[in-house]
Amino acid sequence: MKAFNPVILICALIVAAAPRPALAADKAGELLFRQGNGRGLAPCAPCHGEKGEGRWKEGFPQLAGLSPVYFSQQMANFRSGVRANPVMQPMAQQMSEAEQDQIASYVASLTPAPLSGAEPPTDGLGEQIAHVGLWKKGIPACFSCHGPDGLGVEPKFPRIVWQPPAYTLAQLTSWQSGARRGDPHDLMQGIAARLSEEERQSVAAYLASPTPGLARPRPAAPQKVPGPVLVFEAPDERDIPDSAFGRLVRRGRDIFINTPKELPEAVGNALSCANCHLDRGRLAYSAPLWGAYPVYPLYRSKTHQVDTIEERIQGCFRYSMNGKPPVWNSEPMKALVSYHFWLSRGAPTGVALPGRGYPELPKPARSPTYEAGEKLYATHCALCHGAQGEGQRVRGTLVFPPLWGPDSYNWGAGMHRINTAASFIKHNMPLSQGHTLSDEDAWNLAYFVNAHERPQDPRFQKSLDATTKEFHDENCLYGREVNGKQLGNPRFVKGARSPKHSGPRQAL
Amino acid sequence: MKAFNPVILICALIVAAAPRPALAADKAGELLFRQGNGRGLAPCAPCHGEKGEGRWKEGFPQLAGLSPVYFSQQMANFRSGVRANPVMQPMAQQMSEAEQDQIASYVASLTPAPLSGAEPPTDGLGEQIAHVGLWKKGIPACFSCHGPDGLGVEPKFPRIVWQPPAYTLAQLTSWQSGARRGDPHDLMQGIAARLSEEERQSVAAYLASPTPGLARPRPAAPQKVPGPVLVFEAPDERDIPDSAFGRLVRRGRDIFINTPKELPEAVGNALSCANCHLDRGRLAYSAPLWGAYPVYPLYRSKTHQVDTIEERIQGCFRYSMNGKPPVWNSEPMKALVSYHFWLSRGAPTGVALPGRGYPELPKPARSPTYEAGEKLYATHCALCHGAQGEGQRVRGTLVFPPLWGPDSYNWGAGMHRINTAASFIKHNMPLSQGHTLSDEDAWNLAYFVNAHERPQDPRFQKSLDATTKEFHDENCLYGREVNGKQLGNPRFVKGARSPKHSGPRQAL
Repeated sequence: MKAFNPVILICALIVAAAPRPALAADKAGELLFRQGNGRGLAPCAPCHGEKGEGRWKEGFPQLAGLSPVYFSQQMANFRSGVRANPVMQPMAQQMSEAEQDQIASYVASLTPAPLSGAEPPTDGLGEQIAHVGLWKKGIPACFSCHGPDGLGVEPKFPRIVWQPPAYTLAQLTSWQSGARRGDPHDLMQGIAARLSEEERQSVAAYLASPTPGLARPRPAAPQKVPGPVLVFEAPDERDIPDSAFGRLVRRGRDIFINTPKELPEAVGNALSCANCHLDRGRLAYSAPLWGAYPVYPLYRSKTHQVDTIEERIQGCFRYSMNGKPPVWNSEPMKALVSYHFWLSRGAPTGVALPGRGYPELPKPARSPTYEAGEKLYATHCALCHGAQGEGQRVRGTLVFPPLWGPDSYNWGAGMHRINTAASFIKHNMPLSQGHTLSDEDAWNLAYFVNAHERPQDPRFQKSLDATTKEFHDENCLYGREVNGKQLGNPRFVKGARSPKHSGPRQAL
Repeated sequence: MKAFNPVILICALIVAAAPRPALAADKAGELLFRQGNGRGLAPCAPCHGEKGEGRWKEGFPQLAGLSPVYFSQQMANFRSGVRANPVMQPMAQQMSEAEQDQIASYVASLTPAPLSGAEPPTDGLGEQIAHVGLWKKGIPACFSCHGPDGLGVEPKFPRIVWQPPAYTLAQLTSWQSGARRGDPHDLMQGIAARLSEEERQSVAAYLASPTPGLARPRPAAPQKVPGPVLVFEAPDERDIPDSAFGRLVRRGRDIFINTPKELPEAVGNALSCANCHLDRGRLAYSAPLWGAYPVYPLYRSKTHQVDTIEERIQGCFRYSMNGKPPVWNSEPMKALVSYHFWLSRGAPTGVALPGRGYPELPKPARSPTYEAGEKLYATHCALCHGAQGEGQRVRGTLVFPPLWGPDSYNWGAGMHRINTAASFIKHNMPLSQGHTLSDEDAWNLAYFVNAHERPQDPRFQKSLDATTKEFHDENCLYGREVNGKQLGNPRFVKGARSPKHSGPRQAL
């Protein structure tokens, strides 16, 4: 018996799950791939490999398994010069539309595989960028868009693992220089521009290694970012001690970044803590844990009492995760509190630090509208969160969180308030492009997102009107009529749901 | 009907409770008091008032109700010159021993009363000194020795309220200058030397006012103490906000300083939190709350787990107070946590501050012994804590905590460990005289105190030997034979007791 190989299994699953192109297109594409078209289109295989596996030393990319949509888009980019490449530009010009479709079908039918002999770098920097990001520079984890395993969220976010390091490095450099464009929302142009040469090299090497995306998330490498610290700097995850306390902190971190998997009984939707608290709870202006922990116990108007940190965390489970909170002295609660405590090391007790919470955004001169938000959403948000706000999953794992509907936060969550969501959007969205939207656009988007149905407020009592009156105000749309329907429909989703999606999630 | 007067009631109770001297002595004493003895002893009444009430303007003290022991000791002090006073020295010399006893009996039979027209000062400083102390200068509350109402813990600690301000001020000045000595353990000489002129004036005025000791303890005045801050400085109690949060903090403080009264169901002995955590939990090297709160959650070898601050506080109730801890999210627990949190304002999260806990004291060259400790105890401790470690109460209220026996901490408390008690004693005992005992003396005292029976370890299982083996080590005497008896007798006191002493306690 051969040893079980998880990489091959994953690849097989990908292929099995992908829509199979017609055999005829496959075959025709294979011929073109191997022989060219005899009218100027050279064969692909000599550079990209017989099975589309690429060439390691020369830095020719592995094409196997690319989605036809992505492939065709790249050919179009070569033709138009949006993607400047002296070799590929003439090739793209020499293939007909039908030939392009045939090659795309063949490429999609191939199974990607790790490069033999590729070793991950030892500095930990690439691993950090891939799994965790460099949030101090506004760089999210690669895997937060390209899938928890880096195998891609097709068709917009291609596989990025198992490419020759020279190829990945060249792409990052091209985005930085402007030689390559055409990426959705200019996301990669912005990110590449913030990466140093050292960081580009390390992440390119890391992504080339055999199993980057399949590794469990490890403690973050240091965020070697020079410059002044304008907000509180949470301690380095590498400093979590190897002790009973340290194990509890790591457990809290794991729960935090992958809540439905770690605590399926407590989560009633698809969300994790880290969906609202970016950079694993470390990012300023994204409700960082070091902004919350040191100010509790705190009186909250929402609960009409002084809440401890445990009660505050329970609130997140009840509302934002539409679930059943872990009890006070349970192991998961102690782990979460310990993780909060750890991230707050050095923060002054009882002092509200700059960067805490979601800072209140000034109200716009013009009141936000559904129509304005709808347009902005299609432009800036649908790419990741889906046209219906449903989020995106790959291979059973959530990549982009749903913004409304049954798997999103409920009508009691802080994020359902338009002002709170506007602040989150303004400071953090689109991912890696915080502060690029105007205040007014952020308000319009928050209005639109929160003008959709979502799970019921668990404080619901008697009637929608009574619940509206008791628990909701002018900052939200609960109980209000939008597009002819009153929001907060009690029959939409009641109470906590059992979790549906508990697959592995590695990058958040 | 006349209005109810609590002051008169208290006075009446004092008189009723006091042992009545023989009528003959009373009568003879009264004659001497009014007329003198005709052989050089002038009558007392012209200066001290017909009923021993003193004279406000001239600053002659109110003698009414003084204990015969204290009165006679003062006459002896005048005679010997230990108490230098040009008027009283000749008077004391002119009275025979029998006459002295007669006058003492008469004086004891009189009922003290507030001075008419005395007004408390408005600066809050005297109130602070009387009720709370100025711990940064090593000055405990006046009422922590002179009784919760300042009416005295006879015979060693006389009534200090209702004296003319000029009298109290003159005494404080005399102690400072050395003109008055003879106070037990030189306690007042040390304290008076640390009081500024302003502080002496304010406390003298405050103690003269009609109801200083009967008032509820109020928020502390600022501790106006100049000089560098060598350890963390807890925030001023006056800054506790007037809000739901502030009310919870104050409630926590009240529980902390008078635990048996505020939480009778949780305390099984006579102790309050503030008995071990001096200055209401603010004092460095006395396990200050600002040293504990910021380092929790913390792994503890005692519990073999990471404890939250709530679990740590529960430990105090279970062991040090031999009781039944309030549950996690109960109102008293939230109040106590909020008080801890408040006192830690500004302390860096996760950082162990200088002054936290009871610092480990170097072990002495000679092992501590019962005999050495016994002698030191009689000299330094019995005055307040009683010859049998039983503590002292007045009028139903605990003034000095019991150090062993059924009303003290149990065999599971940290303080039963000799090293812990030695550190507490070294840094804090005798009250206001911390750091005056040698390390070796502190170890001997800790050994002696902890060589007495006390309530059973609540972790007791099966047998004394099994419990010793599982929970105790060489730092304590549990299960060991001392003076022919094995300590930790399971029949001594089992488990939590119902509280016996829940009277008002105002100064801690």
